[in-house]
Amino acid sequence: MNQLFYSHKIYDDKILLPEDEARHCLRVLRKQSGDTIRVVDGKGNYYKALIKTEDLHDCQLKIIDCRRKFGYKNHYIHIAMAPPKNHSRVEWFVEKAVEIGIQEISFILTENSERRNIKIRRIQKRAISSMKQSLKAYLPAINEMVSMIGFLTNCTNKERYIGHLDTTNKNLLFHKAIPKSNYCVLIGPEGGYSSDEIKEAQKYEFQSISLGDSRLRTETAGIAACHILNIINEE
Amino acid sequence: MNQLFYSHKIYDDKILLPEDEARHCLRVLRKQSGDTIRVVDGKGNYYKALIKTEDLHDCQLKIIDCRRKFGYKNHYIHIAMAPPKNHSRVEWFVEKAVEIGIQEISFILTENSERRNIKIRRIQKRAISSMKQSLKAYLPAINEMVSMIGFLTNCTNKERYIGHLDTTNKNLLFHKAIPKSNYCVLIGPEGGYSSDEIKEAQKYEFQSISLGDSRLRTETAGIAACHILNIINEE
Repeated sequence: MNQLFYSHKIYDDKILLPEDEARHCLRVLRKQSGDTIRVVDGKGNYYKALIKTEDLHDCQLKIIDCRRKFGYKNHYIHIAMAPPKNHSRVEWFVEKAVEIGIQEISFILTENSERRNIKIRRIQKRAISSMKQSLKAYLPAINEMVSMIGFLTNCTNKERYIGHLDTTNKNLLFHKAIPKSNYCVLIGPEGGYSSDEIKEAQKYEFQSISLGDSRLRTETAGIAACHILNIINEE
Repeated sequence: MNQLFYSHKIYDDKILLPEDEARHCLRVLRKQSGDTIRVVDGKGNYYKALIKTEDLHDCQLKIIDCRRKFGYKNHYIHIAMAPPKNHSRVEWFVEKAVEIGIQEISFILTENSERRNIKIRRIQKRAISSMKQSLKAYLPAINEMVSMIGFLTNCTNKERYIGHLDTTNKNLLFHKAIPKSNYCVLIGPEGGYSSDEIKEAQKYEFQSISLGDSRLRTETAGIAACHILNIINEE
């Protein structure tokens, strides 16, 4: 019951389990033909399915039940982050954001960015394993890195925030954000945003917010923002 | 301005910088005699000090200014966790808790614990580096692992909570906890607390609380609890 598998290969009443998932299912957990397992597709569908073939390269399952929109939320959280230098901190952010609850993750290139690329395949794998671990059926959209200006011009989220250090800024995200909305929060690099970047973001209606008194690392700020938005949406 | 050093060797108007801190100061940052640096002692004192000797083994500083109770909080957060199997996740929890703000960390041994020991020296080092990184002057107390019952009998915190999965439990910590108090939150192992342990904790006035809808890993639950208590204490 506590083990979820992931597949995006769903055909009518059949599921094809990807090889790495099939290996875990058949080799590690020693599941056999006729056993029932739980599969999610990252799009909100939660399947109960029967193992039909025990072939690692062609592990077929028969769907016996499907719950749609499993764990669907009526808010939308999009965090756009200038990724920290150390890639394991980027992956850590993704793992924790997925656990806590997030709908979209973007990476942006800023003036003070120390990391100019991300390993998107590694990040997607980490997101999938975190989705399974936390028993979720939705996988967030994870976008390739774009420039700050490219991001600003294309952002369509309704409530837009930019987190940056400013001793005069006491606009706590926790007080600003309203429940059941569609949010985007920009999280800056270790060196912070340049003043030009902040002005530019403000032109695109990003409001300056604070995450609290503490000076947080980039990845911690991303998690804090994500957690705050989840808290205000708890019923 | 953004670089803090740590020392617990403070004598009248002098500070002796530990060797690893002295190496970072003199070798990496190439500071010299006569330069001013900032030092914290983990007990709330924030010093401005002058480098007097450039000796790694005997790096003496002269105190020229001291701010006491730097960043003092009028709440007290104590998280007691059954540490996860992977020690790097324990260390990650400590790093993030210190960044976000915490006064005491304990480790407890429970029936379902997968890890029966902790590397306290590594954890203390991680806490010190996180304190410096997040520009804090207080280091949390970090306690050696004790049994669940040992912990319960000695706990003196005022507001006591135990976080555990229970679909009928909608007591959100976020709604329960009141500002400016002295809190202890028990965070269970991956397998959760046994029902005996929960009953025992309740005898010691630990109230069952939920951290929200998501199934969180142990270390994430610890961070979520710590973050919630900080949020409700933000001015």
